[in-house]
Formats: sequence, C-alpha cells, structure tokens
Amino acid sequence: MREEDLDALVVSDPANMNYLAGYEGWSFYVHQAVVVTTNHDEPVWVGRDQDANGARATTWLDEESIHAYSDDHVHSPYDLHPMDYLGEVLEDLDVKDGHIGVEMDAYYFTAKAYTRLQKNLPEATFEDATLLVNWLRIKKSERELEYMREAARISEEAMVAALDTIEAGVPEYEAAAAIYDALIHGADGFGGDYPAIVPLMPSGDHTGTPHLTWTDRKFEEGDPIIIELSGCRHRYHSPLARTTFVGDPPKAVQETADIVVEGLEAALDTVEPGVTCEEVEKAWRNVIQQYDIEKEDRIAYAMGLGYPPDWGEHTASMRPGDETILEENMTFHMIPGLWFDDFGVEMSETFRVTTNGAEVLAEFPRELFTAR
Amino acid sequence: MREEDLDALVVSDPANMNYLAGYEGWSFYVHQAVVVTTNHDEPVWVGRDQDANGARATTWLDEESIHAYSDDHVHSPYDLHPMDYLGEVLEDLDVKDGHIGVEMDAYYFTAKAYTRLQKNLPEATFEDATLLVNWLRIKKSERELEYMREAARISEEAMVAALDTIEAGVPEYEAAAAIYDALIHGADGFGGDYPAIVPLMPSGDHTGTPHLTWTDRKFEEGDPIIIELSGCRHRYHSPLARTTFVGDPPKAVQETADIVVEGLEAALDTVEPGVTCEEVEKAWRNVIQQYDIEKEDRIAYAMGLGYPPDWGEHTASMRPGDETILEENMTFHMIPGLWFDDFGVEMSETFRVTTNGAEVLAEFPRELFTAR
Repeated sequence: MREEDLDALVVSDPANMNYLAGYEGWSFYVHQAVVVTTNHDEPVWVGRDQDANGARATTWLDEESIHAYSDDHVHSPYDLHPMDYLGEVLEDLDVKDGHIGVEMDAYYFTAKAYTRLQKNLPEATFEDATLLVNWLRIKKSERELEYMREAARISEEAMVAALDTIEAGVPEYEAAAAIYDALIHGADGFGGDYPAIVPLMPSGDHTGTPHLTWTDRKFEEGDPIIIELSGCRHRYHSPLARTTFVGDPPKAVQETADIVVEGLEAALDTVEPGVTCEEVEKAWRNVIQQYDIEKEDRIAYAMGLGYPPDWGEHTASMRPGDETILEENMTFHMIPGLWFDDFGVEMSETFRVTTNGAEVLAEFPRELFTAR
Repeated sequence: MREEDLDALVVSDPANMNYLAGYEGWSFYVHQAVVVTTNHDEPVWVGRDQDANGARATTWLDEESIHAYSDDHVHSPYDLHPMDYLGEVLEDLDVKDGHIGVEMDAYYFTAKAYTRLQKNLPEATFEDATLLVNWLRIKKSERELEYMREAARISEEAMVAALDTIEAGVPEYEAAAAIYDALIHGADGFGGDYPAIVPLMPSGDHTGTPHLTWTDRKFEEGDPIIIELSGCRHRYHSPLARTTFVGDPPKAVQETADIVVEGLEAALDTVEPGVTCEEVEKAWRNVIQQYDIEKEDRIAYAMGLGYPPDWGEHTASMRPGDETILEENMTFHMIPGLWFDDFGVEMSETFRVTTNGAEVLAEFPRELFTAR
C-alpha cells in the first residue's frame, strides 16, 4: 500500500477478505468489505448486520473493528446502498480525502458499488488495486499448504467415486452426486467444504464445451468424459482432472491421452525456482508440436484459497508472455488439454514449487481411464 | 427498453442471460453478456471462445449472434479486457452512440467492466438498468413453475436426508454430504442441479450466524440446528428451511417454533392477487407482537432462477414500505425466523400466488423436529 501510495484499501473479493481477516461465510451475495488503512493497527470488517456475528466468530478482529449496516440497505427500495454505510466508515477512518484503493475487477465489486462510493466521498481519489492482495497470496505458508494437501486427499477420493460410478446407462447426475458425497464427506476423518467451482463433467459430444454441468443424460458406450473437480478444506483447493472413456477407446483417443501425459510431465519437469511461467508452458508446447499440434491457451494458473465462482488467483498464468518468475511455495493448477471436433482429453495436477522442482499434491495415476 | 429509451441492454447477470437466451454454464467467472438491441431481431451472446460451444448447445441463438473473445483477454497480462471486445460488438450493432443500459449492481458486472466500457465507447450514454430483466422474471410461466415444483420434490428429499442424518456425535459435514447427495441425486427419476446457495446449517451457538457453513464439529445434545436448502432443476429453485433440535427441546425453543409456524401461516393466509408485499409482512408482525416480539427484517423475497451466489431476484420483498402488488404466478420464498441470544428458529416455504391464495410448493410438516 505504501508503494502504491494508498491510504486505504477496500477489499471486496471474498478470498482476499478471508486472507486478510479470516472472514468466512456465504454472505458475498450482499456487499461487504475488509478495509485496511495505513493509519490503524488492524483492518475493519464491514457487512450486513446479520453477518456481524459471523465476523465475530471467524475473524481475529476486535469488536470495535466490526461495522454492520442495517437490513434496509439490502436490495433496498429506500434508495439506501451498502456503499453509503461504507462511505461513513471510511470517513470515520479519516481517509475521506485520501487515496483509496478498490478492487475494480474483483467479483462482487459492482459498477454501482464504485460509482456510489465515488459519490459518497467526492474528495477521495480512487485507485485500481485489483490484484494487490492476490499477488501476496501466490506464495503459500506451511498452514496453507497443509490445507491444500488435505484438499488433495479429498480430490483423490472424489475422483475414485467418479470413476467407480461412471458406466454406460448411468445418468450424469448420479456421477455428480457420488462426487459431491465424496467432496463433502472428506477423507481421513476430516470433512470437505463446498468447492469454489462445481464438478465439471463434459461428456460425449460436449467434451468441447468445458463449462457445461451434468444433466439427466445417460452415459453411452463411446463417450469420452472429462472430470474436473476439487476437494476444498478451509476454503483451500487442490483441483484434479482426469479423462475416462466408456468402452474401448479408439486409437486416436488413447494417443491423444498419451500426448497430454507426456506434455504435462514435460512441463512439470521444468518447474523450479527461477524459471518463468512462459518457459514452463513452452515445454508443453514443444511436446505437442512434435505431434503437429498447435495450441496457445494457458496451461496453468496460480490458485489456492477461493469462493465461488473461482478458485484461481488471477495473477500468474503459464502462457506465452507471462514472465512471472517461479518461487518456492507458489502453487498452481496445471490443466493442459487437447480438444478436437469429436472428443477432448484433459489431465491436470495441482503442484507446489519446491526448492528444486514441483511437489504434485494428489497421488493419482496419469492415464486414460476406461469404464464399462 | 422503449419505456426507458434504451437502444441496447447489456445483460451480465447469469440468471438474466439464461432467461433471455437460454445460456447455461459455469462460465460466469469470466466476463460475458447477452446484448439486446431495439434494432435487431435477436439478442447477441458475448463470451470467452471456449464457451462459444456452450452457447451453441444451450441458447436458441443463430450462429451469427454468438461472438467470442480470445483467451488472451482472460486475466490478461497484455492490457486486454473482455470489455474491449464487447465494445467492438456494440459498435457492430450500431449502438456506439446510443443509450446503453447496463446492470450496474448485478453480480459479475464489475467496476472495471463499466469504466472500461465507458472508455471504449466515449459517445455512448450509459443508463442503470439493474433490475429491468429481474422484474420480468417475477411472474413465472407454466414451464418455469413445472421446474420449481420439481425442485420442491428435491428439496423434500434433501430435508428428509438432513433430518435422518443429524444426531448427537455426527459431524456437521456428514449431514451436509447427505444433503448434497440428495440434492444432486434428485427425485422421481430426474436429477438435481447445484443450488445457487449451498445448504446452510447454523447450529448450536451459531444459529445466530445464518451464513456459516458446516465444519468438522459434532452435533451435541442441546443443539438447535436450522437447515436451509434448495433443490434446483434447470436452474430453478424451491428453497425450504426447517429447524431441528438434538434431544428434548426446552420449552422456550418449542414455544418459539410454535410462534414462527403461527406467524408463517398467518402471512401465507393473506397472500392473494391485489394484496401488497408489506401487508403480508404485517400479518407476520401482528402475530409476533402478540407475544411481545419485535422484528423488522424482511420475511420473503421474489425468487426462482438463479446462479451462485443467490437464488433471489432482488425485486419485491415482503417488508415495511414495499408496496409491490401481488399478481398471479409471482413466486416467493417466505423465511421468517426468530433469533435470541442462545438459539434461533426458522421455518420457510416457497409459494406461488394463485388466483385467490398461495400454492405452497413443498409438502413438508411445519414443526420443530427433534433428533436423538
């Protein structure tokens, strides 16, 4: 904040609110924020009155740092907006004529929130601080890594449940139900949180539509199915993707899977501190080029803590032009895939950058699976 | 749009995108929109390239109405933003100097999206059209009601699963896993979608923190537990809340539950076309006042179609000052509750306004439940 000459930072991204203050709860459907100022010792939580007890239960903040607006601010017919209340809090914090950072492109910081805040604080100067906290999150502490490893245990269980359930004649939703049961039931005696992204299972013709969710359709002989899911522990994720095939996979599908595994492993092998993100992507691209395949999508992104709609941190990505230098304890989800007109294959790993390589968090065979 | 003198409407709320164009998918973690113009016959879908196939699969739009931006716009290190592409689409639609409605306070329409769009279209005039589509959604068609009734069947199954699982010594996450299994497994041979809000189960001391989710804590003798959940079918919801108690409930808890049921039923009894939202709330408040209880939170809100983080429509609410007049086929979730220092009781129903009353969608006993 000092480098950016900010007097205050209004944090709206629920993951950043959790990171800074510990705040946890499904309350991000109303406006809320954690405000950090350079002239106060601790941040301030601002939210709806019925969520103040949640702030008391989950944050480390003192009672005088918890500020709640009344319920008539919520979807209000009275021309009241939560940003009216937040404006007053910023005045009380003595920054109404200061430089105030806001997360301009963060989920849940709406256009209206911004224009209303500007109107309420005409003397303030607003600066775009969208990824200021996110960039701090990229390197994980030991505690964070512990949660991600626990999430990886859950991901393994959920992937087993998916592979065990899928077969010809089973409706897609039954596989989704088995995955959810495993995700929430957890592993090794601890439970799982809801993941920031629902399990995705594009299948059959739809492996080329990566963000469709399950339907009542029954799996059929000849279906390729991509399963992407993540266990979640204390809001930390460890996503995992694998591909399965109902019946005997055609040669083209098996060969594509082999290329994806080879490319994924080549990319993982290049990971170590000092290497750039684009160099890692290059290792993948070199492999697929040997098979005359060209593809320029990003293959990995920084991630960890997250709330719907995303577990990604929106900072470093492994793709051409991203010169972020890897450092120990950065964490990424690497998810390369190859899609053709009639099928696609994806396989992914979540990993931590170690002192000299990559620690892959989940232990799960890297192969094309088959179902009856 | 004509009444508001709009040449174009940029719809960012995923529920509104679905309502207007049928678009479905977990892709709202990147910027996307459906654009309606007064000078073209059909809307236009704008999204990420890898989601264009999803638009082809789920919308009724012609190929020339599907416009996708390249992946380098996503969390871009290249100073590219999806709103650069959307600006070009609006130019092509011949509205660059028009009156353009934007959903200023909709989820996922960020401050950055707005300022970037303003910058890209300096000749346009932007108007706040936040709830324009939402107000259309409040009255449901027969098809929509069919989906909501199916969602109600799922809600019943999930509530049974919750009540069957909860007992002293069982971890909260096991109840959540049982609920999820039922929510996705569906009812009567059809599957369930992921709900827009996760199951909420504040328990014990935490019944006063309504938006905390489950933990590893084990239910204990003496715990009150509020269960709020919703089945989801084709993105339509029918939420249901009940309260259970582990062990024999103290007199105060049972009496509170009786008051909540009495108030809920009094409010439901006043529902019919022509009555205002605030009159319905008044019926609830009259009941609790007889027991010397005062509470001014809203007790119901319009709802139906939804994506995370909310199934509410953000239009009419049943609370003092809301003079919305009820009409046939409007749907609401009525969720009154009473919270005290050490426990809370909530009970809810989702209902449709009929020609002369209310059709409650779920059939579930209205009582305080008990668990061993």
